[in-house]
Amino acid sequence: MIIDSIGSLSERIRGKKAKFLLVIGTTDVSLIPGITVAGATPELTMFTPAADAEYLITGKCKVINGVPITPDGIPTPALLTRASLSFMNIDKLVVNAGARVTPRIPYLDLHGEPGQDIRNGGIRKEVGERIIENGITLGESLSDEGILVIGESIPAGTTTAAAVLTGLGFDGIKTVSSSSPNNPKDIKRAIVEEAIRKSPSNLMDRIFWLSDPVLLGVSAVTIGFKGLVILAGGTQMTAVAAIVKELEPRRLSEIGIVTTRWVVRDSSASIVEASKEIGVNLSYSNVNLSGSQYEGLRVYERGFVKEGVGAGGSMALALSNGSSEGELVKRIDEYYSDLINADNKAI
Amino acid sequence: MIIDSIGSLSERIRGKKAKFLLVIGTTDVSLIPGITVAGATPELTMFTPAADAEYLITGKCKVINGVPITPDGIPTPALLTRASLSFMNIDKLVVNAGARVTPRIPYLDLHGEPGQDIRNGGIRKEVGERIIENGITLGESLSDEGILVIGESIPAGTTTAAAVLTGLGFDGIKTVSSSSPNNPKDIKRAIVEEAIRKSPSNLMDRIFWLSDPVLLGVSAVTIGFKGLVILAGGTQMTAVAAIVKELEPRRLSEIGIVTTRWVVRDSSASIVEASKEIGVNLSYSNVNLSGSQYEGLRVYERGFVKEGVGAGGSMALALSNGSSEGELVKRIDEYYSDLINADNKAI
Repeated sequence: MIIDSIGSLSERIRGKKAKFLLVIGTTDVSLIPGITVAGATPELTMFTPAADAEYLITGKCKVINGVPITPDGIPTPALLTRASLSFMNIDKLVVNAGARVTPRIPYLDLHGEPGQDIRNGGIRKEVGERIIENGITLGESLSDEGILVIGESIPAGTTTAAAVLTGLGFDGIKTVSSSSPNNPKDIKRAIVEEAIRKSPSNLMDRIFWLSDPVLLGVSAVTIGFKGLVILAGGTQMTAVAAIVKELEPRRLSEIGIVTTRWVVRDSSASIVEASKEIGVNLSYSNVNLSGSQYEGLRVYERGFVKEGVGAGGSMALALSNGSSEGELVKRIDEYYSDLINADNKAI
Repeated sequence: MIIDSIGSLSERIRGKKAKFLLVIGTTDVSLIPGITVAGATPELTMFTPAADAEYLITGKCKVINGVPITPDGIPTPALLTRASLSFMNIDKLVVNAGARVTPRIPYLDLHGEPGQDIRNGGIRKEVGERIIENGITLGESLSDEGILVIGESIPAGTTTAAAVLTGLGFDGIKTVSSSSPNNPKDIKRAIVEEAIRKSPSNLMDRIFWLSDPVLLGVSAVTIGFKGLVILAGGTQMTAVAAIVKELEPRRLSEIGIVTTRWVVRDSSASIVEASKEIGVNLSYSNVNLSGSQYEGLRVYERGFVKEGVGAGGSMALALSNGSSEGELVKRIDEYYSDLINADNKAI
């Protein structure tokens, strides 16, 4: 599958200095049974973003033993991100937009709060405004000479993304993908419909009501930054693009979503159509894990996990900087092996 | 005055991409009357680091009205830093090593704690170890392709620096400068002597006892980073260099202190001798403010303020990147004028 914009975007990436931000947060939507597999249990989803951040930066987690896994034992996509970024010499920084469990490493704080169940309002207005203000300040404080790559980690983030997209007039439920091979669309639809029904009519108030801290944080940093931004994520990033389009439409031409092959070809979602409709560049990393030595990675080809922690954008960055797909898969396998052989067997 | 190492260091700086970290913290030593002028009153010194950070990043302060001033009304050296960095397109990030008042902007947290009066132990061991570990992690997460410039803001930091230097076998009291034209050496000596007398014999325990969070944070980031570090500060940075020499001596050849002309020529201090004795590169920005339009800046030539918030290193960076001294002074005057004319008259 070829996406119109892939050529122009990867041309603009090539050879440019990049920095990587991982924006983390939680939403209580992830506690609803069946909504997400980004954690071994609903309760453990609260630890996933902090653990992803710790693993990305240091190679091991502190807030949990091992690394975040799905209920089936498939490890976090942070593995793909860390392996991909290891080919490059780039700044990696964690941004906390509002997480119940915070990482035990240094991170930039947007002074937000964890998101609540969107059926009763996800983000209080005062908190949302603070996340936006601080995110813009952070974006402005970064040099725009290189590319800013922004990944995310927030379990149930596709549901809040579906809600925001719907609230902004798009077909959110049709758009969003899932970390599960069986996208739980019925559960998502019921939650989104209830949240929409109760949401305020004022535009910003509605965005806050339907949103999670990460969508707001990523949008704000993107607006504050002056250069090229890669939104390294899946269908959630279409909601970010839709928010940016509302708040600062001129930034839209300077941002591109870069995701994985697995999200683009997900027949339960429609990132290509949504990106076109919003008018944001879309590209993906053409990496196939069927040649991996490990079943826990080969299952990506069957729709498990798919994306997260900036995996797609990080792989695209590594490929754009001269690594081959084979080198990438080999390095991902090595990192997977490290997890299996860790003292406290991570997976 | 020419310092041996200035040539080699500025040659290594020139044309290189830099990023700027401001490490902030407080120590209760600053509450001792007469010890510092980095705040209008001893109590207000607790707000100075947060306000410096806010001014540096956004151009205005939130935790206080106006900007930090001395009891005489001289504004913070953050003014010189912000003006100097405005000539460059660089990342500016704030790192909180342990401040009683924290800035209302995004910052990287080392999960430290404010320093206590060093006569009863400045930093608890557990906190000190956490600052060191997190600081190293932060340094490691930054790309080493460019130069890392590290500034500091911590009132009474020269007193804790004197204590650490003394504890490591140097003549700390002789070494350290002051933000006041009348360096209060007798008060500093009494405090340092009492702190040293009570300090533990184990090396790390002694460093923690005598230290403040900023000295530990700057040292740790310097150790974790893999490239060239500019310690943008005055005599406090000799204490950082001494700590780095103890913990990771191989890093010493990759770091240089870059300060102001006012610190180098301070006859009450001896940064040149201390740097030689420790074996760390030293350089300074040859900027003279006697041509400024403002008395509040011309007084730098009479030993007021002298350094802080990375002023010396930032001015050196601007000069190395092609700005002239005249352009620099003009820009500093403009920023000073903005403060005077701000809605809530800042100074």
